[in-house]
Amino acid sequence: MKRDEFDQWVRAELDAVESALDAWVPSDSPAGLGLAMRYGVLDGGKRVRPLLVLAACESVDGNREAAMRAACAVELIHAYSLIHDDMPCMDNDILRRGKPTVHVQFGEAQAMLAGDAMQALAFEVLTPPDSATVPAALQARLCSLLARSAGHAGMAGGQAIDLASIGKPLDEHTLRDMHHRKTGALLQASVLMGAATGTTTAAQWNALSDYGDALGLAFQVVDDILDVTQASETLGKTAGKDQDNNKPTYVTVLGLDAARRHAAELRDKAQASLARSGLADATWLSLLADKVVDRDN
Amino acid sequence: MKRDEFDQWVRAELDAVESALDAWVPSDSPAGLGLAMRYGVLDGGKRVRPLLVLAACESVDGNREAAMRAACAVELIHAYSLIHDDMPCMDNDILRRGKPTVHVQFGEAQAMLAGDAMQALAFEVLTPPDSATVPAALQARLCSLLARSAGHAGMAGGQAIDLASIGKPLDEHTLRDMHHRKTGALLQASVLMGAATGTTTAAQWNALSDYGDALGLAFQVVDDILDVTQASETLGKTAGKDQDNNKPTYVTVLGLDAARRHAAELRDKAQASLARSGLADATWLSLLADKVVDRDN
Repeated sequence: MKRDEFDQWVRAELDAVESALDAWVPSDSPAGLGLAMRYGVLDGGKRVRPLLVLAACESVDGNREAAMRAACAVELIHAYSLIHDDMPCMDNDILRRGKPTVHVQFGEAQAMLAGDAMQALAFEVLTPPDSATVPAALQARLCSLLARSAGHAGMAGGQAIDLASIGKPLDEHTLRDMHHRKTGALLQASVLMGAATGTTTAAQWNALSDYGDALGLAFQVVDDILDVTQASETLGKTAGKDQDNNKPTYVTVLGLDAARRHAAELRDKAQASLARSGLADATWLSLLADKVVDRDN
Repeated sequence: MKRDEFDQWVRAELDAVESALDAWVPSDSPAGLGLAMRYGVLDGGKRVRPLLVLAACESVDGNREAAMRAACAVELIHAYSLIHDDMPCMDNDILRRGKPTVHVQFGEAQAMLAGDAMQALAFEVLTPPDSATVPAALQARLCSLLARSAGHAGMAGGQAIDLASIGKPLDEHTLRDMHHRKTGALLQASVLMGAATGTTTAAQWNALSDYGDALGLAFQVVDDILDVTQASETLGKTAGKDQDNNKPTYVTVLGLDAARRHAAELRDKAQASLARSGLADATWLSLLADKVVDRDN
């Protein structure tokens, strides 16, 4: 029953996020830049981060307009990072979300600019001129959370470690540190941005932070598992590419069985954090943790 | 007399900006990312944008801490755009600020990541956790101004037009539109961010906006002139590269003499806007307009 309601909620929110992105990502930007931006973010992706923002907002009965802006902003950051990550000087990948990557479709220079403009757009979306719907203090808080999770201490820093680790053996500790930054920081920030749209106690905030931390790591462990167990068609991106790129993953470091056990442990940890939070209704967050671990793409 | 004071003010502010950047751009970021970021922004550049922020702040007797953060944030955006612009898929340039470009020094992937992390860092710097020194509403306003000037409607959009214009004849109108976005938007935003740190009437705000607009265009016209009249050693970057890249410039569209006259007209327009603003002391802004037009690098 709850499961059916959840599926309905997910479908409705995915539609709402798509409409909002469609409205906010420009189609009339000069010299085709807007088209490249739209190609890179519309009509694709699992939208895990927006769903986390919106579920966290519901769990704290937060400001819906602010949460939708945060949901789109974090997806813009995620989508720009994929565009840059796919470029020839990084992973050199040609398939993403079942389509040719942005640089294959629009050229490398336009892909780089589209990514750059999408990062800026994320902060535009968070700072609407009208502070009546999103109070200025909340705008600033959301910008702060997003910038710190996307930057040198978060996503970009993790990608730098990733880049430096190609062909090198990593221990589990270093692998975990890399993923905490590269994937975990933005997923955790999604939860916290949603939480920031409402009111929480310090204990609730910390519990949601722990939930986001465990879920972020679980997401990456499952990604590493899927990279070796699924075909490219299911993933919508090139399967086995970590192996081909000689990159350390949870599967190469722990082995497949231990990686699966680790993902289950992290899900349990995320659920325990939610239980500890004492939030009145964290159902969607709980079911999202299951969805992240049980997914097949 | 004023001129001496101005030179002193410029030197002191350049030192202050350098110290602030040195403190805010991380040296201990993982896998060399911080080093690449620091290489790309410290110890170089004319710092026109930070000086505009700080001069505008003085003209409205604004919040000094906020202005220093805005000065560094806008310079981080400018510096990241140079790093990306110099990359092989864009201008493919090897010399910048008298040094090898970031991708030559650190590799293309690290250069792209450093630029990405610097854009995020700009918004980190604008949103300190402590809102006692920079009120949250001002943080949000500065993020809004910076994001819009850096994104698709501003700098990134202008670069996309630039990219599409290579080898094509442009009329003066299209060239002006490109430069309004590519260079003008961020220079104008620098003035407005400085103005936002204090209190202005709507008329003063509009006058400062017009000043920033004229100055931004003047800056680009002078850049185009210097590209053909100065040697690489003086510029600290490759001279004649617009011509080599077959890019339309004010010099190719108007001719050298008319470009010089145009720069002088724009300076007059900037000065007239300041006079119209009725601000008690806009001396530094006025002398900065002269400095931008009279510079030789």
